[in-house]
Amino acid sequence: MRNLKLALSYDGTDFHGWQVQPGLRTVQETLESAWAALTGERLRVNASGRTDTGVHAVGQVVNLRSETKLSSEVLLRALNAHLPADVVVREATDVPDSFDANRDAKRKLYRYVIHDGPVPELFLRRYCYHTRYRLEAAAMARAAACLRGTHDFHSFETEWPNRATSVRTITHLAINRFADWIWLDVEADGFLYNMVRAIAGTLINVGRGYWPESRVAEIVEAKDRTLAGPTAPALGLFLMRVSYDE
Amino acid sequence: MRNLKLALSYDGTDFHGWQVQPGLRTVQETLESAWAALTGERLRVNASGRTDTGVHAVGQVVNLRSETKLSSEVLLRALNAHLPADVVVREATDVPDSFDANRDAKRKLYRYVIHDGPVPELFLRRYCYHTRYRLEAAAMARAAACLRGTHDFHSFETEWPNRATSVRTITHLAINRFADWIWLDVEADGFLYNMVRAIAGTLINVGRGYWPESRVAEIVEAKDRTLAGPTAPALGLFLMRVSYDE
Repeated sequence: MRNLKLALSYDGTDFHGWQVQPGLRTVQETLESAWAALTGERLRVNASGRTDTGVHAVGQVVNLRSETKLSSEVLLRALNAHLPADVVVREATDVPDSFDANRDAKRKLYRYVIHDGPVPELFLRRYCYHTRYRLEAAAMARAAACLRGTHDFHSFETEWPNRATSVRTITHLAINRFADWIWLDVEADGFLYNMVRAIAGTLINVGRGYWPESRVAEIVEAKDRTLAGPTAPALGLFLMRVSYDE
Repeated sequence: MRNLKLALSYDGTDFHGWQVQPGLRTVQETLESAWAALTGERLRVNASGRTDTGVHAVGQVVNLRSETKLSSEVLLRALNAHLPADVVVREATDVPDSFDANRDAKRKLYRYVIHDGPVPELFLRRYCYHTRYRLEAAAMARAAACLRGTHDFHSFETEWPNRATSVRTITHLAINRFADWIWLDVEADGFLYNMVRAIAGTLINVGRGYWPESRVAEIVEAKDRTLAGPTAPALGLFLMRVSYDE
C-alpha cells in the first residue's frame, strides 16, 4: 500500500467548500471521483484541513493510501486529465507510511486579497474582495502587529461547537500594498473557523478609518466575537501553503 | 441631444459576443438594457466593432445619443450599478455630435495571450489559451515580422460575404514572453473576421516547430485561408484599445 501526497490548487468559486456533503459539489468529492475514474479505487483523501464555500487554494495538501501501480508522474498527468478545469493537482509524491496531511501540518499560510481601486478589476473579480473606498494599508499593518504571537483568538472565531481551545500562534503576519491591491498574509500553527476572514474584516474597518488602530488589541483582549469586524467575503481568501517538518 | 462616448471592459466568457442576437446574452443587449433601466431610454449603442463569442475587451468604445440630464460622473457610477459583474464601464464622456465610434476608429489593438507552462494557470484559465508544449517565442516573433505593414490578409480571414477588400495595414506587431506567458499584440487600421486568431494559430504552429519561420510569408503571399494555421480559441483574445484622432 502506497501513501501518496498530493499538492493541489482549486478555484473555490463553484465549490461548496472542501468537505464531502451529499448532493453538493465539493473539492473532496471531485478529487475522489477523479481518482476512482482513473484507478477504480473508491477511497477517502485526507486533507490538511477543510476550506469553506468559495475559498480558493493555491497549495492545499492531501494524502491518500492506494494500491495503484502508476508512477507519480503518470498519476499527476492522468489525474489532471480526469479533473475539471477548476481543480489542478500540482505535485504527486510517494511519502513514508507515517505521513498524515492533517495531523502533521505544522503551519498554514492564508492570504486575503483586497482590491480598492475605483472600478472593479474585471478579470480578477472572482479572486479578490473589492471596495471602492481607499484603505490605509499602513494603518492596517500597524493595527495588525498585535496579532502576532500566541493569543486567544476567540474574538475572531465563528462559533463552532466542541472546540477545546481558541489559543493559536501566528508565526507570520504581513500586509502589503501594490497599486490598488492589498494582501494580508497570515501564517499560524492552526486557524479557528473564519479566523482570517474575521481578521480581514476587522482590519478593513481600521483601513477605512472607522476604528482607531488601537481597537484591534482591545478586541483580542475582550475575547468577544461581536466586537470584531464582519467576516470578509470568501472570494478574497486563498490557502497558500501548508508546511510540514522535512 | 447629447452624444456620449463610453469606454468599457467585459469578460467575454459568458457572452455570445457583442452584437444583439434574439434569445442570446450579448454585451450590446446587456449594456442597452442597463441603460434603459437607468434612464428609461431604449436606444442602440454604436460600437467600434463587434467582438465574437468568448472574446474579451479591455477597451471597447461605443457612442450613443441620449436626452439624459445625468452628469457623466453620475452616469458612470449608476450604469455600473445596473450592469452585471462581467461588464464594467470605465469612462463616460460627452463628445462632439459628429463623433461615431465605429466610423471614426483609426486603429484597434488586439492582444492574444498564451500560457505555455506545464500546468494550466488555474485562476487565469478563462483569459488565456493554454498549451503544455513550450513555444519558441523568438521564432514566432521573427516569423511574424513579415505581417507588419500593408498586405492582403485573405489567408487569415474566415470567409465573410460581401467584403470589399481584405487589404489591411498592421501598424504595430509585437510578441513578448515573460515566464510562461506569451502575448501577441497586433494593431491595425482594421481587422478581418477572425484575423488575429488565425495569425495566432499560425504563429503557434511556428512556435511548436511544426512550420519553418519562412512559412508565414508564403501564407500571406498565397491568399489562401487553408494554408494558414487554425483559428486559435476565443478565450485568449482581448480587444485592448481603440484609437481615434484627437
